Amino acid sequence: MDGSVRVRLDLAYDGTDFSGWAKQAHGERTVQGVLEQALAVAVGRADGPAPRLVVAGRTDTGVHAAGQVAHVDLTPEQLAALTRRHDGQGEVDAVARRLTGLLNVDGDVVVHRSSIAPPGFDARFSATHRRYRYRIADRLTARDPVDRRRTMSYPRTLDDELMRAAVAAVTGLHDFAAYCKPRPGGTTIRDLRSLTWARDPSGVLVAEVLADAFCHNMVRALVGASIAVGTGRIAPERMAALLEEPIRSNEFPVAPAYGLTLVEVGYPSDDALADQARRTRALRALP
Amino acid sequence: MDGSVRVRLDLAYDGTDFSGWAKQAHGERTVQGVLEQALAVAVGRADGPAPRLVVAGRTDTGVHAAGQVAHVDLTPEQLAALTRRHDGQGEVDAVARRLTGLLNVDGDVVVHRSSIAPPGFDARFSATHRRYRYRIADRLTARDPVDRRRTMSYPRTLDDELMRAAVAAVTGLHDFAAYCKPRPGGTTIRDLRSLTWARDPSGVLVAEVLADAFCHNMVRALVGASIAVGTGRIAPERMAALLEEPIRSNEFPVAPAYGLTLVEVGYPSDDALADQARRTRALRALP
Repeated sequence: MDGSVRVRLDLAYDGTDFSGWAKQAHGERTVQGVLEQALAVAVGRADGPAPRLVVAGRTDTGVHAAGQVAHVDLTPEQLAALTRRHDGQGEVDAVARRLTGLLNVDGDVVVHRSSIAPPGFDARFSATHRRYRYRIADRLTARDPVDRRRTMSYPRTLDDELMRAAVAAVTGLHDFAAYCKPRPGGTTIRDLRSLTWARDPSGVLVAEVLADAFCHNMVRALVGASIAVGTGRIAPERMAALLEEPIRSNEFPVAPAYGLTLVEVGYPSDDALADQARRTRALRALP
Repeated sequence: MDGSVRVRLDLAYDGTDFSGWAKQAHGERTVQGVLEQALAVAVGRADGPAPRLVVAGRTDTGVHAAGQVAHVDLTPEQLAALTRRHDGQGEVDAVARRLTGLLNVDGDVVVHRSSIAPPGFDARFSATHRRYRYRIADRLTARDPVDRRRTMSYPRTLDDELMRAAVAAVTGLHDFAAYCKPRPGGTTIRDLRSLTWARDPSGVLVAEVLADAFCHNMVRALVGASIAVGTGRIAPERMAALLEEPIRSNEFPVAPAYGLTLVEVGYPSDDALADQARRTRALRALP
């Protein structure tokens, strides 16, 4: 849009009561839906098209976010309405407070920060990495009832040494078809930069997973395979061997959504944003 | 009870959907109520009176626990039924798993550990200290939606330096009448061993409060006064000055329950348990 202002939003949500991020046709409650509705209320009758959000990580039903990033393009009139200033020069950081106030009835979405996006910024295409966390309480003493919405309860103790050995062999640039729910026309080649399993002080088994991007269900499939290794149902070497498979594996179930949280989206320095977006738009392919 | 076995239970709960710990006359859902019901189901028709719990910290409606301790006296027949062993020599640590299984429909109570209590142990009277935590998100960026059930949302940033100065002057053995909801016949003299305010890595303002015991509403009153200091509504010195007041102060509101968690109950070494219980039963009095 000519003359429009791109605003970056940093946000967090409890995914329990959402049908994921993406707005849906049938009126399900989604994060995008409630945020765009709050934006529509806040801009009111200001001149411009209905605000639409572009997000870094389209989380599935039940998945949480601690460090989600989105952007929205607004006309100067809309931004002025959002910041309640009439000269179009409102303080953009007031947008976070305004939106969070409008969303606060349920308290399960918070906009942490709002800022004018630097030139070339695109929440989705400029991102250089996404980091997810998966939490498993596999011991009675590690179960914290207040944390149960983001921590998978597993009835047996898992062998985390075997899990560490298995995941060490799957990092790197690979075709993750065995770990992806396919999407038409989409590649399943990803650069899995890091995947670690460790116990936190209370004994919760935590995976930290970092990649340039993830194909659909990839983290939950990698976690599901790790659990199958941790119970002894599949051998540790099997996780790397599956990278040779051209289609999704049925040797392990995908781990449930509620243990998963998007914790961070990474971007390059401001002068590299536009280049990064161009590179991402080109289809990923093995070198 | 002659021949009975005292079992110690270590447990945690999300207080959101409970009307506190203590069983009530009118059928409200309480932690004691659901636990005693699970115990009754588990012991079935085994010979002995209905199991009754004695707890270290009777938490109020909405207050959480990460490290609550209770005890229950069982006949050997009841213990055998609970552990599903018929020789009366069942492994008592199976009780935690059994009870948690029975409670697991809602998942808001977990029994972490069960053990035969050492001689002289009384969950309430043998305890030498209780530690509580209070969490306040007073900045937008500190608000984590998944943690909102145990973190009070405060709309303004609080001056934590003033709060630290104020609470440093209220520790020690005092009559906390200004900070207590009075109970007939109860003393309000307590030994407040430690009260600190600090920010965690995400910016949440956290109080850690340790005392031999707390009178009713005492932590929430100390937190409420701290907040009044943090907003500038009362002077830091006022918190210590209030210790001279013989009745509950109305200069600040008591902080809401949902930010409060009982995190730990402390006991002396096994050989000192009985002595400690005797000392506690004697009325506390200023030396």
